[in-house]
Amino acid sequence: MSLQHTLNAIGPLDQKAMAAARARQDTLTKPPGSLGRLEELSVQLAGIQGKEKPQIRHKAVFTLAADHGVAAEGVSAYPQAVTAQMVLNFLRGGAAINVLARQVGARVIVADLGVASPLPQHPQLRSHPVAPGSADLAHGPAMSREQALAAIETGIRLVEGELPQGLDAVATGDMGIANTTPSAAIAAAITGLPVARLAGRGTGIDEARLAHKIAVIEQALAINRPNPADALGVLSKVGGFEIGGLAGVMLAGAAHRLPVVIDGFISGAAALIAAGLCPQAKDYFIASHVSVEPGHRLMLEHLGLKPLMNLDLRLGEGTGAALAFTFVEAAARILSEMATFAEAGVSEAGPNPE
Amino acid sequence: MSLQHTLNAIGPLDQKAMAAARARQDTLTKPPGSLGRLEELSVQLAGIQGKEKPQIRHKAVFTLAADHGVAAEGVSAYPQAVTAQMVLNFLRGGAAINVLARQVGARVIVADLGVASPLPQHPQLRSHPVAPGSADLAHGPAMSREQALAAIETGIRLVEGELPQGLDAVATGDMGIANTTPSAAIAAAITGLPVARLAGRGTGIDEARLAHKIAVIEQALAINRPNPADALGVLSKVGGFEIGGLAGVMLAGAAHRLPVVIDGFISGAAALIAAGLCPQAKDYFIASHVSVEPGHRLMLEHLGLKPLMNLDLRLGEGTGAALAFTFVEAAARILSEMATFAEAGVSEAGPNPE
Repeated sequence: MSLQHTLNAIGPLDQKAMAAARARQDTLTKPPGSLGRLEELSVQLAGIQGKEKPQIRHKAVFTLAADHGVAAEGVSAYPQAVTAQMVLNFLRGGAAINVLARQVGARVIVADLGVASPLPQHPQLRSHPVAPGSADLAHGPAMSREQALAAIETGIRLVEGELPQGLDAVATGDMGIANTTPSAAIAAAITGLPVARLAGRGTGIDEARLAHKIAVIEQALAINRPNPADALGVLSKVGGFEIGGLAGVMLAGAAHRLPVVIDGFISGAAALIAAGLCPQAKDYFIASHVSVEPGHRLMLEHLGLKPLMNLDLRLGEGTGAALAFTFVEAAARILSEMATFAEAGVSEAGPNPE
Repeated sequence: MSLQHTLNAIGPLDQKAMAAARARQDTLTKPPGSLGRLEELSVQLAGIQGKEKPQIRHKAVFTLAADHGVAAEGVSAYPQAVTAQMVLNFLRGGAAINVLARQVGARVIVADLGVASPLPQHPQLRSHPVAPGSADLAHGPAMSREQALAAIETGIRLVEGELPQGLDAVATGDMGIANTTPSAAIAAAITGLPVARLAGRGTGIDEARLAHKIAVIEQALAINRPNPADALGVLSKVGGFEIGGLAGVMLAGAAHRLPVVIDGFISGAAALIAAGLCPQAKDYFIASHVSVEPGHRLMLEHLGLKPLMNLDLRLGEGTGAALAFTFVEAAARILSEMATFAEAGVSEAGPNPE
């Protein structure tokens, strides 16, 4: 679907299914509410799927890669060639996301949205580069508005391409050297918070390089003047191709009534773009974890999302989101597989004494 | 093994294996430290198993049940009969712990350490009651010192009985109406903190019943005067049979060099007993989550353990611990399955610029 069709297809959660799931939780053999956030999550899943007993079987992590012209400013600890090298590592199954996806029984969809170095053809690589890396946002727009739209629609098509194989939940992941820089710029543009609170050490830069990174982002915002009310404009001026692609994955997930499990800082920037294009899409989002990157917590607050985990992760690739699939699947199974008080012949709580 | 033999068998973590695992983490294709607590956990697992690449395949949740004489004081929202009813629910696979254990591929070991209501014979029920419920700790010791020892040694034997089927990690869980009362009493006795900070609403009692519960625990401590330096004495005076059994599971786990994944408030009380008997056992403990029960955080602080999750759980049974097996298994797999920079041909971080 086009972006416009996708946005039009995003509807509200099914309140009737949510009420049924909530009522069912209170009949299951446990003190009401005692499964905490798993119960909330189960109700959200019911609303997304429109069923009292949602089912999560087929799970996919979308790990989208692209390069960033701003890497030339020396904002990362790693050379740009690592983006392509890591894509090959994903395809060979040796990266952290491969290990964690195997652990939770999810498939990994690896896509090139705009990697600068040449990549070989590979049967598992979805090759949809918008351009060989974005332009340097410190000196002008990272991409054209048309390219921003193309990146988002590529993400939409990636999700739709997975539907025939079965898809009950999507997770988002990223690879792109220097991509915490556009992500912090997007967060600053949309939340209005100071860059110094949003930019962090990424893969591990020192104090001096962090100060330089902040200055680069401030310069990018001063030159490009993104309008926070125009999410597509923000993406084109200070974003990146994989960030646009991930926003498309999120919007397509919401349009197809799939839970969208969001990873860390870069996925958070994509979620800001997606929610800017369609606030209702947020109802489909599940924040997997809060990253070490200090701006991530602020992004999640702006989105009104509460992370499920805090494991001090700062890797990206979809690693936190993949782990959170365990909670998503467990929450759904509780509604289907737990016995009710009546079925199990278990006594319910008595009234509190007078 | 006897308790004394088990305590004697608990040794330090393997520092050489931990150093090797730590060094290996820094060669894997990710920024050093970027997997946060999963990296720390992998190093702990290496120290426990004495291997650079620990393996976690066979996982068991030990869900131990018993009744408590103090239930007669009206400290719980549920009637005592629920303990036995829930044991039957565990055996039929309809409880939350069954669902979550299936989700993570763990088996559930259900044991009767002292349920008051009669239970039928069942091939999956480990029937080792110390007595049909503990005595009411508000009026005297909950059990004799011999019974406390018997409960602990039952837990030890349960773990040892599972070794032949393969066992790489254990988790602890509990069922026992009113058992947050002895757990809070144990925590007060061992930490010296006020009862009002440690006792909570358990399965969901109101303000008036909570005040009564606090008064009951204070009375129990005043009458029994447990000595914090004598953990077996604390267990016998204000504990419960399943709590003793869980302390035994934890000590046997440490003695057999298995990671011990600890559930919520009742398991936390058992961990205080186990650590009181052998402080070194704590090196083998992994705190899965922090419970809604307010005393749980204080227990974990006293033990020096940092929980992996905060999902607002307050169910027990081993539910939080079962979910955390996912992290334990993932942490181990990262060391075995991720490619190194050299293997994958990925460039490492450059120096920070001068």
